[in-house]
Amino acid sequence: MLPDPLDPDRFLADLHALRAIGASGSGVVRRAFDPDDVRARRWLAGRFSEAGLEPHIDPAGNVWGLGGPLLIGSHTDTQPEGGWLDGALGVVAGLEVARVTPGVSVVSFQDEEGRFGATTGSEIWSGATTLEAADALEDLDGIRFGTAPQALPPTGDFPDPARFTAYLEAHIEQGPVLDTTQDTAGVVTAIVGLRQVTVTLTGQQNHAGTTPMRLRRDALAGLAQAQIAIADHLRNVVTPESVWTIGHVTLHPNAPSVVPGRVRFSVQWRDGDRDRLDRMERAIRGALAHVAAATGLTLDVSDTAGLPPTTMDQRLRETLAEAAAVHAPGRWRHMPSGALHDATNVARVLPVGMLFAPSIGGISHDFAEDTAEDDLVTCLRILADAAARLT
Amino acid sequence: MLPDPLDPDRFLADLHALRAIGASGSGVVRRAFDPDDVRARRWLAGRFSEAGLEPHIDPAGNVWGLGGPLLIGSHTDTQPEGGWLDGALGVVAGLEVARVTPGVSVVSFQDEEGRFGATTGSEIWSGATTLEAADALEDLDGIRFGTAPQALPPTGDFPDPARFTAYLEAHIEQGPVLDTTQDTAGVVTAIVGLRQVTVTLTGQQNHAGTTPMRLRRDALAGLAQAQIAIADHLRNVVTPESVWTIGHVTLHPNAPSVVPGRVRFSVQWRDGDRDRLDRMERAIRGALAHVAAATGLTLDVSDTAGLPPTTMDQRLRETLAEAAAVHAPGRWRHMPSGALHDATNVARVLPVGMLFAPSIGGISHDFAEDTAEDDLVTCLRILADAAARLT
Repeated sequence: MLPDPLDPDRFLADLHALRAIGASGSGVVRRAFDPDDVRARRWLAGRFSEAGLEPHIDPAGNVWGLGGPLLIGSHTDTQPEGGWLDGALGVVAGLEVARVTPGVSVVSFQDEEGRFGATTGSEIWSGATTLEAADALEDLDGIRFGTAPQALPPTGDFPDPARFTAYLEAHIEQGPVLDTTQDTAGVVTAIVGLRQVTVTLTGQQNHAGTTPMRLRRDALAGLAQAQIAIADHLRNVVTPESVWTIGHVTLHPNAPSVVPGRVRFSVQWRDGDRDRLDRMERAIRGALAHVAAATGLTLDVSDTAGLPPTTMDQRLRETLAEAAAVHAPGRWRHMPSGALHDATNVARVLPVGMLFAPSIGGISHDFAEDTAEDDLVTCLRILADAAARLT
Repeated sequence: MLPDPLDPDRFLADLHALRAIGASGSGVVRRAFDPDDVRARRWLAGRFSEAGLEPHIDPAGNVWGLGGPLLIGSHTDTQPEGGWLDGALGVVAGLEVARVTPGVSVVSFQDEEGRFGATTGSEIWSGATTLEAADALEDLDGIRFGTAPQALPPTGDFPDPARFTAYLEAHIEQGPVLDTTQDTAGVVTAIVGLRQVTVTLTGQQNHAGTTPMRLRRDALAGLAQAQIAIADHLRNVVTPESVWTIGHVTLHPNAPSVVPGRVRFSVQWRDGDRDRLDRMERAIRGALAHVAAATGLTLDVSDTAGLPPTTMDQRLRETLAEAAAVHAPGRWRHMPSGALHDATNVARVLPVGMLFAPSIGGISHDFAEDTAEDDLVTCLRILADAAARLT
């Protein structure tokens, strides 16, 4: 018997059915293991069953539709103010592809959005962390990840990664690139690596009325110069796809009538190339040392935290590109992913490939997140075509 | 009968006795109307009485030692972590001068340090505000100024300003100028005026991984450029005694992985000359407009709040200078006061003059605040000499 043909209306109906669970205005609220997340995961397990997949809930709360060796998925949990697509797109697209393509399994990983950790479910499944270590993670209310699965009891152990041969993940871009270039799809080249340091510049806290400018050692002036010097020092190191951000600032004592004595700030940078991450780090540390010397402020830079870049599998990437050329001729591009995804973890155990749909206005992690339905369907067609080529 | 000779040891003993009330390490904690402030004010009223002055507590909690028409004073309340001298120096010096100089009255104004308002007691007495308006001021715990005097009931009404002919205030400098120049005394030319605006720069909050640098409108980059542009635009407007400060910053949403969408910050500037305050304001507003235009950020600048400069009375200033030349020859200077003082309010009703003692390391509003005892005694001698010339 031939499988059903791909049904875009059924796919969109499923997306809207999932959107209704935890709906809040045009967005959704389904924090990992909260009642609406559990309802959504039970709904999904039912859909897997109807599609002829074997529903399965593992000890981390990942929900599986077990079938063949090509694994397709993403996550259905959301941010505290989440968009309706985000990870849901990749899970529901996987479900529709599985209906029409023999040899496909589907997964919704748990806690990708980090109520407890970050990409917790795929971290555990891929062996990047252990269930025991993750059990100690707490959410902002002090609830432990280890007690949360009582709301969604496992039906069995973790599926053996060896039963799968590859992983495909469709996701919204969560950035403005495709929306700006008017492309319909992005084939991901790499998930960028991320590094971050915490910088402290210390001067002298003083009365803002009685301290002459020439005798000040103003920490905020140091921050201003650091912001500009970092951009300057990075100029000959970066590509148009490199990014860096000072996103978090704490000023002390933070009073209008006091010359700031200390400022602490994050510097984060991302790139798809590990060597370039190294060169960016040298430039940033050099810029900070230069500013400290020029201003007489004391500099402390933390150890570097980070994640390495994840390169997409060459064959999966080429297959997605071939399918994109069929279904979105002249309207797709290769691009890095600036955001982290479950694919970062899955890459530890399987070859991975990713496909992006445009985000209108580049908006994500916001109730206003959206994508045109035509673009969602094009994304589905590319994913289904690629799956057919791979199975 | 001749009055006693000036007694520096008695003056220092009084300062140390007052320091013991609310002592905390090397500093003191006497918030307006708290139990230690009340104890200190009752102690002071007793000392006034012993010195032959008429002790008097007015409805705002100002404590008076009423005698002749030359009023000398400051305040004995402190910051939450106050130094032992601050306003206490001027009150205790006034007490010692009154002991040896006929025709002197002494005052300790209440709430100069702003538990409820700021310079509240001298504001009320000088008519800058009314007792009724001040009654509604609340401290950080919601306690109203109007209920606080239950702890220190008034002994009568406000003394009529018409009974006084001039006001002298000795105070620590609270800045590094005298400590840096190795001078022993400063004769104040003016209490600088202060102006302040709150600036909001609004860009676009975005994901720090997925938003290319060229598409960002980063509010923190705007703050950095504003800090530098303000200094640039002020260069040809200011004197070495002008100061300006960005002391309070609120970044939104203030997360390492989010491009800042909005920053709000204070810009405060001070100068002794009203025209220069105007020119500084034009330069600052011009710099901000320039940055907004260059960065594509939206600019909002609040109305300007502030206080005008207070010029010291010419005769009082000259008299203090003559006395300084006798007791600290070659080791005193004319200088503006960068900090506010009760004299700002008193200038509404009386000619005022001020004298500064050095602050070691420029430190004030801190338990570590200190001044060499030799410098305190020199300050007393100058004040007593000036008082003798004026009575």
